[in-house]
Amino acid sequence: MEALDYHAEERRKAEFDVEEMKIVWAGSRQAYEISDRVARLVASDPVFRKDNRTMLSRKDLFKDTLRKAAHAWKRIIELRLSEEEASKLRFFVDQPVFTDLHWGMFIPAIKGQGNDEQQQKWLPMAYKMQIIGCYAQTELGHGSNVQGLETTATFDPETDEFVIHSPTLTSSKWWPGGLGKVSTHALVYARLITDGQDHGVHGFIVQLRSLDDHLPLPGITVGDIGMKFGSGAYNSMDNGVLRFDHVRIPRDQMLMGVSQVTREGKFMQSDVPRQLVYGTMVYVRQKIVADASCALSRAVCIATRYSVVRRQFGSHNGGPETQVIDYKTQQSRLFPLLASAYAFRFVGEWLKWLYTDVTQRLQASDFSTLPEVHACTAGLKSVTTSATADAIEECRKLCGGHGYLSSSGLPELFAVYVPACTYEGDNVVLLLQVARFLMKTVSQLGSGKKPVGTIAYMGRSEHLLQCRCEVERAEDWLKPNVILEAFEARAARMSFTCAKNLNNFPNQEEGFAQLATDLAEAAVAHVQLIIVSKFIEKLQQDIPGKGVKRQLEILFNVYALSLLHKHLGDFVASGCITPKQGALANEQLRLLYSQVRPNAIALVDAFNYTDHYLGSVLGRYDGNVYPKLYEEAWKDPLNETVIPDGYHEYIRPILKQHIRVARL
Amino acid sequence: MEALDYHAEERRKAEFDVEEMKIVWAGSRQAYEISDRVARLVASDPVFRKDNRTMLSRKDLFKDTLRKAAHAWKRIIELRLSEEEASKLRFFVDQPVFTDLHWGMFIPAIKGQGNDEQQQKWLPMAYKMQIIGCYAQTELGHGSNVQGLETTATFDPETDEFVIHSPTLTSSKWWPGGLGKVSTHALVYARLITDGQDHGVHGFIVQLRSLDDHLPLPGITVGDIGMKFGSGAYNSMDNGVLRFDHVRIPRDQMLMGVSQVTREGKFMQSDVPRQLVYGTMVYVRQKIVADASCALSRAVCIATRYSVVRRQFGSHNGGPETQVIDYKTQQSRLFPLLASAYAFRFVGEWLKWLYTDVTQRLQASDFSTLPEVHACTAGLKSVTTSATADAIEECRKLCGGHGYLSSSGLPELFAVYVPACTYEGDNVVLLLQVARFLMKTVSQLGSGKKPVGTIAYMGRSEHLLQCRCEVERAEDWLKPNVILEAFEARAARMSFTCAKNLNNFPNQEEGFAQLATDLAEAAVAHVQLIIVSKFIEKLQQDIPGKGVKRQLEILFNVYALSLLHKHLGDFVASGCITPKQGALANEQLRLLYSQVRPNAIALVDAFNYTDHYLGSVLGRYDGNVYPKLYEEAWKDPLNETVIPDGYHEYIRPILKQHIRVARL
Repeated sequence: MEALDYHAEERRKAEFDVEEMKIVWAGSRQAYEISDRVARLVASDPVFRKDNRTMLSRKDLFKDTLRKAAHAWKRIIELRLSEEEASKLRFFVDQPVFTDLHWGMFIPAIKGQGNDEQQQKWLPMAYKMQIIGCYAQTELGHGSNVQGLETTATFDPETDEFVIHSPTLTSSKWWPGGLGKVSTHALVYARLITDGQDHGVHGFIVQLRSLDDHLPLPGITVGDIGMKFGSGAYNSMDNGVLRFDHVRIPRDQMLMGVSQVTREGKFMQSDVPRQLVYGTMVYVRQKIVADASCALSRAVCIATRYSVVRRQFGSHNGGPETQVIDYKTQQSRLFPLLASAYAFRFVGEWLKWLYTDVTQRLQASDFSTLPEVHACTAGLKSVTTSATADAIEECRKLCGGHGYLSSSGLPELFAVYVPACTYEGDNVVLLLQVARFLMKTVSQLGSGKKPVGTIAYMGRSEHLLQCRCEVERAEDWLKPNVILEAFEARAARMSFTCAKNLNNFPNQEEGFAQLATDLAEAAVAHVQLIIVSKFIEKLQQDIPGKGVKRQLEILFNVYALSLLHKHLGDFVASGCITPKQGALANEQLRLLYSQVRPNAIALVDAFNYTDHYLGSVLGRYDGNVYPKLYEEAWKDPLNETVIPDGYHEYIRPILKQHIRVARL
Repeated sequence: MEALDYHAEERRKAEFDVEEMKIVWAGSRQAYEISDRVARLVASDPVFRKDNRTMLSRKDLFKDTLRKAAHAWKRIIELRLSEEEASKLRFFVDQPVFTDLHWGMFIPAIKGQGNDEQQQKWLPMAYKMQIIGCYAQTELGHGSNVQGLETTATFDPETDEFVIHSPTLTSSKWWPGGLGKVSTHALVYARLITDGQDHGVHGFIVQLRSLDDHLPLPGITVGDIGMKFGSGAYNSMDNGVLRFDHVRIPRDQMLMGVSQVTREGKFMQSDVPRQLVYGTMVYVRQKIVADASCALSRAVCIATRYSVVRRQFGSHNGGPETQVIDYKTQQSRLFPLLASAYAFRFVGEWLKWLYTDVTQRLQASDFSTLPEVHACTAGLKSVTTSATADAIEECRKLCGGHGYLSSSGLPELFAVYVPACTYEGDNVVLLLQVARFLMKTVSQLGSGKKPVGTIAYMGRSEHLLQCRCEVERAEDWLKPNVILEAFEARAARMSFTCAKNLNNFPNQEEGFAQLATDLAEAAVAHVQLIIVSKFIEKLQQDIPGKGVKRQLEILFNVYALSLLHKHLGDFVASGCITPKQGALANEQLRLLYSQVRPNAIALVDAFNYTDHYLGSVLGRYDGNVYPKLYEEAWKDPLNETVIPDGYHEYIRPILKQHIRVARL
């Protein structure tokens, strides 16, 4: 018996080999196979069920999360999963939990900042989870500005210990995931003080809870910081608050990979260059960009599938109404997001390469590319996460009213995703860092220092500041080099305009403060150019599979031209393109949407998400939406009884009262 | 003893009379006084406490909501509140509940669509709440398109009854608030069928539940549709699902104000013109626009107050860090939203006047302004709700990481607000209705029919299509008439371009479908012009109070110029302004932000929101944020015990196991 598939007809329309596209999306055949296998493993395991998640109270949700984490660990050991497979398994369980921080922050930080001895001592315990660690950096009153942290670690030469202390309420550690209820240890960032001198912020391994009975150790006040955005979502995580009252730790629990304190209390910078920490930063940011493409593709997959199922208006002679995906307004909102998912995927892939490249350079003490790499990763983190957060909500709206139901999966996806815009560097702060780099690049252009990598185009600024776009017909906008030059010219001109305007201020810093908004916009232009150019590089690779490359070309054009339309003011006001050329781009975009339409379902199938992972009735693979929505509704706790709890106290008395309504 | 007020210094900076501004915001002294009194009444009543709302399970939340609704009703009767006061009280209780639909939809619909006899029979029971009603229109498979509804009401001449029936799964009523668990009656919209003939959709009063024991009546299947976006938020409402299995109701329960069915089963249109229903529509939409200004101002109030408390970077010589509100990036994101709150308030006020105007015209059988009124209200509903939804999330991000905490109040505000974008007309569908009206207006320009009201500017299109903006210096952008002409020119040119492009299609409908996105953008331009022009009209009124008018002028300029910057592509590409003039607008905007800065706190104080209504630790009137955040955290259920539930089953076994990690 063939399984029900309302999307079968749509799938037959596809003009390309979807199996090959799955491999392109995954990055390699091997990555695809691992991912596919682990996803099915998770989906078929009843412990990992998550369809009831938004209905659970905080305590029940948290307990359910602990259960899943324990079960995941058990399966990882039983199945002898590799590190990559284990990480994939946690990914597909899809529920924020303390292990995210243990594996994602605690262990990498010890690896990156601990010396050999410390790594040998702590890592084996952490790998076996005999200790559970979190990353305690941000404080109640201090977020982005790490140098403003108030917690102190004062060396006591008498006992050879550090005294960790929270001197103020605002110095309370606040937000660290896994801290509130679970972690036995924390990597605590505190101001190092020796002999009355402040040496800035360093990391310290501090035990928080007894390994015997889990009770907080003396001097430690710790708890959960309370409910966060949404139901389900990040409420499965015990983000925590932590205060220290003169807690003593041995000297060797300061992470000494980069700096040290000797037995005598002398502070020493090690000979390991501080720049090494940039390696970790690039690693974390490439992961964030990869996560953006996941979250975005997930939302797009749900919205695309439901846009095919949902019909509204346009019925002729009593026939069925029009599928909403056939409306240009739906296409012009949805398809640019579909294209963005692919664009972010490819730039994320490139960042992975960049990470290995940087690592090799750092090991060879080549720090030359660091400023550019820093700007580029900061910018990509900012632009991709902001775009993704907006896109998830847009996808929800594209599902109409039903997107508001938890069973659509979109509210929780949004709630769980949005912190990416403010953590690991606030997105606006990051854009300003990019802008600083751009301004520095512009100011050094005369000096003979040739810009390289993602900023290389600035070396051609003389041309870019005066070139004229040659588009005469709509189809001219299909040429990658035409698009690339327009994006390069826009980015260069916006940077140069900012640089020029900065010169009008007597004080450079004052100018930077006053023009911050313009600078941030110039940074966005630069970052969008990077994404466009990496997409082009992808297209230049050898891409097998019938029609696959053609689809990617279409998506590239949709991505670039929809950006151009959205930022038309930048392009036209800077003279990069004429209003007429802008209108032609728009015309071409409309034609492109018609080309995406028959392939839309196959393009989201290529993400290869299980129904379990998607967690959305609207996004079901088989499109059987309405019966399942109906079925889901009855599972709500309110439907456990026909008469609601509270009827006798609060409804019946209203209905039965005999009032004389005097004024109403 | 003076109460603690961290904002006192900020309040002293204000350059205007905040008490007078409160009256401007409220609309009149009387409105201000009622609002102020009722808000305090609610805030001081412990039953209306809501700070624990996001932690409650669905069932507990629902019961708590019933309790509040019963208490609100009790207070309304005890205090003999007027209809306006009662409505304010429900507003300040600030928790979606069945009474919203009973008072806001059920009663108005009977008033608007019932005949005299029906009003006399049903309204007194409804006013006394001896019956509780909801509004059952949308179906599982049918949202915006009312004409696509499937539920049938078939007249049975033998028994003089209608048989209400749900013929398919997709015809299940779905979404109506108050339906799931509470309402005893529903206004059901169904296809009227007499003698085999379909007369389209009409309204029927159907009893759902027994007034004795609250059990659903025979043939009725009813329940709640499950969790929605967020914790707290709309989960206090029993949005419901409803199916009919041949349920019979007497003939006189069809609402017969407009059409009737006789005893013989003859369908008759009454002599009351159908256009009368437009009155209700204008009423509902003006309320939605007023709600937008409330939700937006609430978010802005929270973000503004916290931006003054929060400090990041910029510390010199160990002094305090910079207040984030002093950063231009913060100002350029926050102040346009502050200005929008005022702009929406004033256009909402005008809509209130428009409603009375339309009502008078309808009574005089003057239908001439209806198309313009319909387009204008549809457009304003769309533009203000979309902008408000985005703005709430932007305000959340402006609060940094702490905005993600439920105790910031912003996640719940967002979750409870966003359905406004898809209910009462999907925002994109509404824009297309506006666009149709615009295209019709353009096509009739030659016919001698003079456009009036909000579309009057089209009568000057000859001038607007060729006028040149005269701005030469930044301060020229302060002139309202300069701004108005730029917005008029933009709107007119975008409409004319669409009209011209439509002519390139052989078939008008096909052209409309293909150009839908451009048409929607033209509609936005038209609606933004309306908001700008109504703000200007407000400024032309007599506004007392020291400095009040000056502040409103600044806010007007911020609103208009930030829109101009955001839509620079429209203005420049259509030749309304030059790139240079765009840059001057931006320069002026920056200067305006500096003028808003010292008044920011007073400008949000003018909304006169109690801390109870705001429901935000970050937005506290006294600015005492951090100690209160810390205090709130400990109230989370997870903090009831030191050792979390689940520790023994799921954490301890991991820590205590002795595994050999082979591959990790």
